[in-house]
Amino acid sequence: MTGPRGSVRRAVVLLSGGLDSTTTLARAIEQGFEVFALTLRYGQRHAIETACAEEQARALGAREHRVVDVDLGFAGGSALTDRSIAVPKDRAAREPADGVPVTYVPARNAVLLSLALAWAETLGARDLFIGANVLDYSGYPDCRPEFLRAFEEMARRATRAGAAGEAFRVRAPLLRMTKADIVREAVRLGVDLSRTLSCYDPGPQGQPCGACDACVLRAKGFREAGVADPTAGP
Amino acid sequence: MTGPRGSVRRAVVLLSGGLDSTTTLARAIEQGFEVFALTLRYGQRHAIETACAEEQARALGAREHRVVDVDLGFAGGSALTDRSIAVPKDRAAREPADGVPVTYVPARNAVLLSLALAWAETLGARDLFIGANVLDYSGYPDCRPEFLRAFEEMARRATRAGAAGEAFRVRAPLLRMTKADIVREAVRLGVDLSRTLSCYDPGPQGQPCGACDACVLRAKGFREAGVADPTAGP
Repeated sequence: MTGPRGSVRRAVVLLSGGLDSTTTLARAIEQGFEVFALTLRYGQRHAIETACAEEQARALGAREHRVVDVDLGFAGGSALTDRSIAVPKDRAAREPADGVPVTYVPARNAVLLSLALAWAETLGARDLFIGANVLDYSGYPDCRPEFLRAFEEMARRATRAGAAGEAFRVRAPLLRMTKADIVREAVRLGVDLSRTLSCYDPGPQGQPCGACDACVLRAKGFREAGVADPTAGP
Repeated sequence: MTGPRGSVRRAVVLLSGGLDSTTTLARAIEQGFEVFALTLRYGQRHAIETACAEEQARALGAREHRVVDVDLGFAGGSALTDRSIAVPKDRAAREPADGVPVTYVPARNAVLLSLALAWAETLGARDLFIGANVLDYSGYPDCRPEFLRAFEEMARRATRAGAAGEAFRVRAPLLRMTKADIVREAVRLGVDLSRTLSCYDPGPQGQPCGACDACVLRAKGFREAGVADPTAGP
């Protein structure tokens, strides 16, 4: 994708190393963006994702990949960052009364996108990619289109570029896809599925637990897409 | 300040250890909030600020104080986080053509407020205090009221609390004060001015350089307020 003066347009892609963000990265590259991939270690349990992210960024052709620490665990309140809250393994019981899962990390996407925005501004990028999905994760407020639009408006007000009249675009190409759609899209784009980690609570060697929400959802997606999951056990 | 059920209302206050954020903290406490102070070390040059923040939080009566690292230096683009960019010491030359100083840190307040938001959500706080000021720092886009309002809207969309119909309020009590007003306000509130550090480029023992924008502005404020600055040299 080319910018106003014919230069290649840059984009920052949030890349966790999971299926969704890796597929998002592949889409951004397919669309012709020069991609700067950003992996934020925010105190989640599975640092093994970072190794997957590193490999995928290289394999798919990101121009640059950065791994940055941001401590979201200090704020607590989530099973993904607080070891005293168990990752639920029984999908029927996963949702508190308000419909927001305990795996919701308070203000997570606001923090991650803000850091992506900081890098984007320095790079001259105006496009931020995120693997947000509204169907399978409808309980997460910060995966909804209203949030993404509100973030764009905030980004315009927060930055030097915005003050100069430019706009930032948050792109979530998987927003309305089912998990099966995402699996098919990953296959079409040539993503190495064996090096994507979706599990919320993997074992020490990065093996998925097979029982958390993310594993259950992923298995359902592969099944419906008719694709074998190379990370699943025998 | 009391909440809906008569409980004391909680607030998160961003506290750098400078004059503005310390005065903001004192104001939040005067207003009756139970205050949780948050110091974010974002790769700025003056880690000495953190010691001031710690002391001020204790002295002024914050309920809790956390110091959290967030690497904003990775994104570059600012004299405050990138050692290859000099902190300007000549105020007349400080502004690039677009009016945004080189001490602007890309998306800084978006990142800092997002982290404050994460903690606020877990604490049940709905008020975020920031020492933003629109007069003396008119070049910083993320100190303007339009940004603060856009952040509030984004926060409402980003969070579990917002999804349940609650709103977050970003409070910037110093927003339209001159530096002299802020000095007078700090004196009125009993802030120990000898333990506030405003300099962008202090010496190894935390002594202000006396020449950067922050020092020049601070000196002018003290002068106009008719108050002696205990941190200034002889």
